[in-house]
Amino acid sequence: MNNYEFLCPTKIIFGKDTHKEIGARIKPYADKVLFHYGGGSIKASGLYDDVVASLKEAGIQFEELGGVKPNPRLELVHEGVKLCREKGIEFILAVGGGSVIDSAKAIAMGACYDGDVWDIYSGEAEAKKALPVATILTIPAAGSESSPSSVITNYATKRKVGHTTELIRPVFSITNPELCMTLPKNQMANGVSDMMSHIFERYFTHTQHTDLTDSLCEATLRTITKNARILVRDYENYNAWAEIVQCGSFAHNDFLGVGRDQDWACHAMEHELSAIYDIPHGAGLSILTPAWMRYVYKENFPMFMQFAVNVMGVSGTFRTPDEMINVAIDRLESFYREIGLPVRLCEVNIDATHLQHMADMAAGTKTIGGLKKLNADDVLSIYRMALK
Amino acid sequence: MNNYEFLCPTKIIFGKDTHKEIGARIKPYADKVLFHYGGGSIKASGLYDDVVASLKEAGIQFEELGGVKPNPRLELVHEGVKLCREKGIEFILAVGGGSVIDSAKAIAMGACYDGDVWDIYSGEAEAKKALPVATILTIPAAGSESSPSSVITNYATKRKVGHTTELIRPVFSITNPELCMTLPKNQMANGVSDMMSHIFERYFTHTQHTDLTDSLCEATLRTITKNARILVRDYENYNAWAEIVQCGSFAHNDFLGVGRDQDWACHAMEHELSAIYDIPHGAGLSILTPAWMRYVYKENFPMFMQFAVNVMGVSGTFRTPDEMINVAIDRLESFYREIGLPVRLCEVNIDATHLQHMADMAAGTKTIGGLKKLNADDVLSIYRMALK
Repeated sequence: MNNYEFLCPTKIIFGKDTHKEIGARIKPYADKVLFHYGGGSIKASGLYDDVVASLKEAGIQFEELGGVKPNPRLELVHEGVKLCREKGIEFILAVGGGSVIDSAKAIAMGACYDGDVWDIYSGEAEAKKALPVATILTIPAAGSESSPSSVITNYATKRKVGHTTELIRPVFSITNPELCMTLPKNQMANGVSDMMSHIFERYFTHTQHTDLTDSLCEATLRTITKNARILVRDYENYNAWAEIVQCGSFAHNDFLGVGRDQDWACHAMEHELSAIYDIPHGAGLSILTPAWMRYVYKENFPMFMQFAVNVMGVSGTFRTPDEMINVAIDRLESFYREIGLPVRLCEVNIDATHLQHMADMAAGTKTIGGLKKLNADDVLSIYRMALK
Repeated sequence: MNNYEFLCPTKIIFGKDTHKEIGARIKPYADKVLFHYGGGSIKASGLYDDVVASLKEAGIQFEELGGVKPNPRLELVHEGVKLCREKGIEFILAVGGGSVIDSAKAIAMGACYDGDVWDIYSGEAEAKKALPVATILTIPAAGSESSPSSVITNYATKRKVGHTTELIRPVFSITNPELCMTLPKNQMANGVSDMMSHIFERYFTHTQHTDLTDSLCEATLRTITKNARILVRDYENYNAWAEIVQCGSFAHNDFLGVGRDQDWACHAMEHELSAIYDIPHGAGLSILTPAWMRYVYKENFPMFMQFAVNVMGVSGTFRTPDEMINVAIDRLESFYREIGLPVRLCEVNIDATHLQHMADMAAGTKTIGGLKKLNADDVLSIYRMALK
């Protein structure tokens, strides 16, 4: 096990009706709030009205900024930063999924930084301060509700870049599984794919002696696949949503990754994919993850055998590990299909046109990944394996 | 799953040599520190010298208060409070196990309260403020290094009482598994028993739909038993200690208990036992837990079958659950014995003399426990079952 530091100070407020307390929850922090959200879904579901009523009841002034799209854009972040400065905003409330929360985190940093907030994402400047952020989560997926990370896309330069700092970790997050029931089914599936990938990125490691975190990863993955299958049959099952929401936060608060070398190649490869094609992050991951597994598993047979047995429930002879591991990857693909996700690029109408460019962007001057260090040729091979 | 709030803001600094950074870690918080510890073991091991060197290097003034004993006493807390007031102490550093940390937390509250700090434990007063506390953990057991709880014994009134408030949650905890290797073996065993009990108290519940936390509890319990057995054979195995230390914190930071009705009868019964007999808390728990299980398992056959199969690895016919559950409890007793713990009161020379008094103290005017609500008669029966 490696040395580590672990910190997860976000307060999780979990359960039925909890979003109706938002005004009172914010009051100790601020009187002037930016209410940041996505499209019209929170208006259709009644969540918007609940939030407005609670903020008003608590005597909180607020400005609104809707319109966050998947793969949140720098342009809207700039708009939010401007609004914060003009109106003296003290606190950002993100109501939505990972995209809204990531956009809110970018605004929180931008409001306290004199230049263009993109400087912080591009690595040219360091964030020194940020407004406090809180969330009402509507899409369990990104884990952004308790993470110190934000990913923003600059479509002008076709770059999707993440930034991590404790400054933007939400002070609290309201996670009410009821709010997920009005999500389109593909968003549930994309979220499940994303949270599973957050665990895979931590799970597949060469670090030895990681009994507890290995078994926590496995337990969380099994809980996700079981409950996602329940949702496919019974979409308004509160308890299944509760498990999925809980798993989504736990998958990315890093407790599952402490003391381990981590991988993160699939996320890096997927970022290039969705930067160019604007497909959902979760769909990109369900396409790339099985291809990545087939490309790298020979680097660590025991780890992938453990995955096959402890996560995917494969039984058989340990003397033909290739066979058992491939059964496990097939089962993972079947699971993705079962919940409605693509597992090949052709299913989302992506052909070979930009693969070389994406590979160069992902790993052109460096390698990515921990289990196997992938250069641009490796990445190109994985993209090609995922074609059809 | 029940609604819940979850908060665990203690920063965990984990791994080899991390205690040598203590001065620099405290510096952002304070210049005047109370260095609180137990007996001479930290002097014999060299830890005392490392701490003093690091504090001096960081230019931190400190007062010392050693002498904390297991089941930490109110008298020493009073002494610490007096010292804090006289010397203008700003911060408490607890170097030791749960007893030292609990004592430090009591001093931290007492230093900011005008009356006797026992008022807070007895429920007559509320803590409004406390000095910040940090820890260097030497005994993985109580989970106090990241918990908001403290248990203090008032020997004048023979009362052992716990108090919980966010004010006393450590701001950071250094958990270096190397520091555990000089512990007497019985302290390892007592710690393992205590952390397992922290999980049992959360695990055994009537709450339905708790897939994730069920499986996290089971994963943590299996990790503990596996690695405690390694330590019995190979006491200086760093990786096994690392797992045990990690499990100890995780067992009691309450992530394993969120959304579940919890039990806590064994802890309540044990508190009365060690208040009178001053036996180690972990030994009291290894004696009472199997008796409690045998007394209550019929209240929830599926939960105890799940324990038998998923934690204790019992296989067999599910049509005779009594048989499988009793095999599981036998295996738990065997495990306790294997690591050197008592499983009957007679093994620690306790007879029936005070059983009625302890039962009255534990549950005289109320019931204790969640899985089965136990009155004083139930508690007396469990104490009697544990006699021999």
